[in-house]
Parts: sequence; C-alpha cells; structure tokens
Amino acid sequence: MTIQVFGHKSPDTDSTGSPIIWAWYLNQIKGEDAKPVLLGEPNTEAAFMLSHWGLDKPEIIEDVAEGAPVVIVDTNNPAELPKSINKADIRGIIDHHKLVAGLETKAPIEIRIEPLACTATIMWKMIGDDLAQAPREIKGAMLTCILSDTLEFRSPTTTQEDKAIAFGLAKDLDVDLKDFAAQMFAAKSDVSAFSDAELLRMDSKEYEVDGTKFRVSVLETTAPDMPLSRKDSLMETMKTVASEDDVDEVLLFVVDILNEEATLLVPNDRVKAVAEKSFGATVEGDTVVLPGVMSRKKQIIPNLKV
Amino acid sequence: MTIQVFGHKSPDTDSTGSPIIWAWYLNQIKGEDAKPVLLGEPNTEAAFMLSHWGLDKPEIIEDVAEGAPVVIVDTNNPAELPKSINKADIRGIIDHHKLVAGLETKAPIEIRIEPLACTATIMWKMIGDDLAQAPREIKGAMLTCILSDTLEFRSPTTTQEDKAIAFGLAKDLDVDLKDFAAQMFAAKSDVSAFSDAELLRMDSKEYEVDGTKFRVSVLETTAPDMPLSRKDSLMETMKTVASEDDVDEVLLFVVDILNEEATLLVPNDRVKAVAEKSFGATVEGDTVVLPGVMSRKKQIIPNLKV
Repeated sequence: MTIQVFGHKSPDTDSTGSPIIWAWYLNQIKGEDAKPVLLGEPNTEAAFMLSHWGLDKPEIIEDVAEGAPVVIVDTNNPAELPKSINKADIRGIIDHHKLVAGLETKAPIEIRIEPLACTATIMWKMIGDDLAQAPREIKGAMLTCILSDTLEFRSPTTTQEDKAIAFGLAKDLDVDLKDFAAQMFAAKSDVSAFSDAELLRMDSKEYEVDGTKFRVSVLETTAPDMPLSRKDSLMETMKTVASEDDVDEVLLFVVDILNEEATLLVPNDRVKAVAEKSFGATVEGDTVVLPGVMSRKKQIIPNLKV
Repeated sequence: MTIQVFGHKSPDTDSTGSPIIWAWYLNQIKGEDAKPVLLGEPNTEAAFMLSHWGLDKPEIIEDVAEGAPVVIVDTNNPAELPKSINKADIRGIIDHHKLVAGLETKAPIEIRIEPLACTATIMWKMIGDDLAQAPREIKGAMLTCILSDTLEFRSPTTTQEDKAIAFGLAKDLDVDLKDFAAQMFAAKSDVSAFSDAELLRMDSKEYEVDGTKFRVSVLETTAPDMPLSRKDSLMETMKTVASEDDVDEVLLFVVDILNEEATLLVPNDRVKAVAEKSFGATVEGDTVVLPGVMSRKKQIIPNLKV
C-alpha cells in the first residue's frame, strides 16, 4: 500500500513542501512506495512554490482509511489532522511543534521532533548525504519551506541551522535569496481572491487559555494595507467564524514581514483585554500594533492571557 | 537548574543506564548541567551493570518539581513517570516505545523515538563521533543496555543497528560478549531476594484490552525454575496485586532467555482464555509454554485478546 505523507489541514509552504520532500526520499532513497498528499488547498505562497519549481500539486484527501500507512509532517496535533488519524497505520512523525497529547501508535515508530524553524530543515538533517541525489525541484522546495517558516530569517524561531542550511541550498541552486524571498512573500501577500472567512481560517490554530477558546490566526504579508483595508468586514465576519468553529474569539494578527511587527484587530473589549494582558499593549481604537511580534509559536501562543 | 534525566518507574538496565549515558553527554559534550536519577530501585541486572562498570547508583526521586528541567528516556508514557511530569519543563524525550497520548510540552523540544531495541542504541546514533570522548564506564553502560534489551540479540525487537553497535562497543572495550551477557543474565535471574509481589511488579506494564485491565509482567531469566518453583504462591499473590493496582488480571510471563520461550502462569479461566485466544495455545494445568515468545513489546502486547 502506498504510504501517504501529509502535513496539517491548512497547507502553508512547509506543510505542502515537506510531504513532497519526504515522499521523494522514501521513494528514491528508501525504496518505499510513497506519495505526498494535502489536507486542503495550498495557500498562495505554497502554490507559488509548486509552480516556480515545476512540482505537481499533490492530491487533496478528506480522510485516511483504517490501517492506511501514513507519515505525518509539520504537526503532531490530531485536531489538525484527518478525523480517522488514530486508526491509520502511522509510520513516522517529523515535526517542529510542541508535543500535544493525542496521537497514538500501535508499535514503536520513528518520531523526530526538533525545535527548529522548519520541518524541511529537520528533513535536510535526516536525509544527509543522500540529498546530493535530489533533483533541483526537491532542493528548491526545501529552500522555499525554510525561507517561508523563518520569514527570510526574521522570525525569532530561526536557528543557526535553518539559516546555514538555507544559505547552502541557495548556493547549490544558484538562487538569489533576497530576490526569491521577495517573490514568495509577494505571492503570500496577494490575498485578494479570499473571502473574509477564508482569510480568518487560512493560517490559524485553535488554542485554549483558562477555558477561553481562541482561533489564533496569522496573515504574514509584505502588504499589510491589503488585509487591513478590509478590517471592518473581517471583524464582522469573526462573529460568524467563531460561532461556526465553536471558539470564543478569533484573533487576527497581520504580520508585517518587512517592518517586523504585527497588527492585531480589536473588535471588542475581550480582545482588547487580551492585547493588554498578553502583550502589554495600550489599545486605542480597533487595531493595535505589536512591535517585533512575528511568530505565533514563539511570541503569541506562549504569552496569551485572558 | 540541574536537568534531571530519568527513565521509567521500574528501572531495568536500559532505564538505569540510558540516563547515565545521556547525563554524561549533556554535561561533558553539550556543556549543560545534568544528572541521572532513578524513579525506583534498579533491578538486579541494572545493579550488576552499576557495580561492574564502577558507576554510582543515581539518586532515587519520588516526583518532579513544577518547572524543573527534565529529559525523559526509555518511555513516553505518563503512567510510567512521576505524577507531576506534565508540570515539569520537559526538555527532551529519547525513546523506543510506541507513542502513547499523554505527555505535553509548552514549546517545541527535541524528541527522538526510533523502532530500535534499546534507548542506548538511539543515543549512540545521536552522540555520534563525540562518543570517542566517553570514558570506559559510559561505553560499558551502553553495551550492557543493548545486550539487556536485545537479550543478547535473541529478542525479535533486535535490529541490525542494535547488533552492529553492540559488536563495535564490545570490540572497543575488549569485552567477550558471550561471557559478559551470561554474567548479566545470571544477575537478572537471581530473584531470590524478592517477594512475590515485588516479582510481579518488577518488569511490568499496564495494558487494557477491550475494557479488561492487565498488568503484563515479564521475568527474563536463564533459570526459569527459580520463579516457577514459586508459582503457587505467585498465583495466590496475583489476587492481592491485581486488587491493589486496580487491574483485572496479572499476567506473568517467565521468559527463558536461553531456550527462547515463555511460560505463562494460568491461575484461572480468564487467563486460560487469554492464552488460547492470544497465542493459540492449548492450556492444560496452571502453566503453558509459549515457544519463541520473548518480547512483551513485539509479541505479547500486540497479540493480547480477551
């Protein structure tokens, strides 16, 4: 049976690219039968990666069959995975997020989680010398994932390993890092095609603090005016999204990649209190700028207070 | 704060030796401040390892403090760990068991789980060339752990990696593998000092099948007659142990390392049915021999049926 390799339900660049990288490794180096799949439509930056490197868009699946062999990458959280994930035959997990109680396996499997910025960085280390056999598009996907997750090394999640590996790949591929990252971020920043609800759910994780359930959404962009000009209708739509997704509040952080700051929309007093308690911000009006805030994982989630 | 490195609550050789190995690595190679600790009294084989290689017996701790930095080895199961484990600052997990939902971390940490026979084998791979700096007793502990968990390569959990690494260590240390393993197993087989209840709990894991809770206990020995001569009182004591530990049944498998078979004690009809359904055995009397059965992880737990 073909091993399905997938990331989480909101495929960003790492969750789209890493399954492609790992399926290549399993097929070409390990002699297994594997294919990358997606759990949803890739975002605009991920779509740019696919077209730029000439990679096929992986098939989108809804759920996994009982006993189906799978490898999970870029998450270990069942809430971000197919409904039947614990009935599948989980063969491996490669991730860079905190451990969340939830996944179970029937036998010991290979699990590799490291506090690096990007899943593809961990794969680079695991693949080792065999990467020399990888075609240009696989190394290209790897580079794109690392630039994406590190926001071109601006994110505080960036480690020396992520950076050194990205520089090495760029040199190997003869890619101008600055120019390429600008193209990626322009692709990510073009959110005009998305509805408000789609924007709120695009790069989003549910997180509970002392009984209050949040949908913590991030929009990384080099053109913050684009989403911020829609703030009134975004804030209106938050009510519907919160109700449909059974959370108390949607927090939208518009992350300005180039200016290294986030703007949080403040639709009500509860979010205002969250902004003040969590980030020591002084809120006036319906937005607040949080200087230096770029990472949900490292700066937003660990500080969230109600 | 000193990082405490520990294995599970019933310290066998791997759960005693691997914390010692990893604390050495963290201290001497990584420049951190770490110490091995135990969650219980080491078994007789683990005690042999300590005295043979001249290692200090690690301190035994009862629980971990909130926020205390810890590294967990040889398990990822909260039931086998200190009560307050999820309040500790878990810095890393190195294990070779199936993933059990339960542990959580506040941030991404280094987790390495591989389907190898022994935690020390994974550590050998992680330590890499730095092992050249390890003193004789650290390499000796590593070798002892691998020989213990593989039952000198007889256990079906044994992989080529475990075997190759053990041979390399034995050569490096100029140890006669066969002779050394015989000394280890003789130490493990001397169970005369233990009460029946201690024997039943010594190398034991709780496991639930369709609502029936088992304590699955294993005694690996080169002298099966020693525990089997006590079978009547062991079976009598099972009732007390089951009741005290809130399980429905205690299963005791006496694993004959040299003859590569297990003898299961059959105190009642429920265990008789388990033996028949799980292992296709024909039970007559109060014991049944299961040819080839040596591994709880690979042969007993996955087959257990009620």
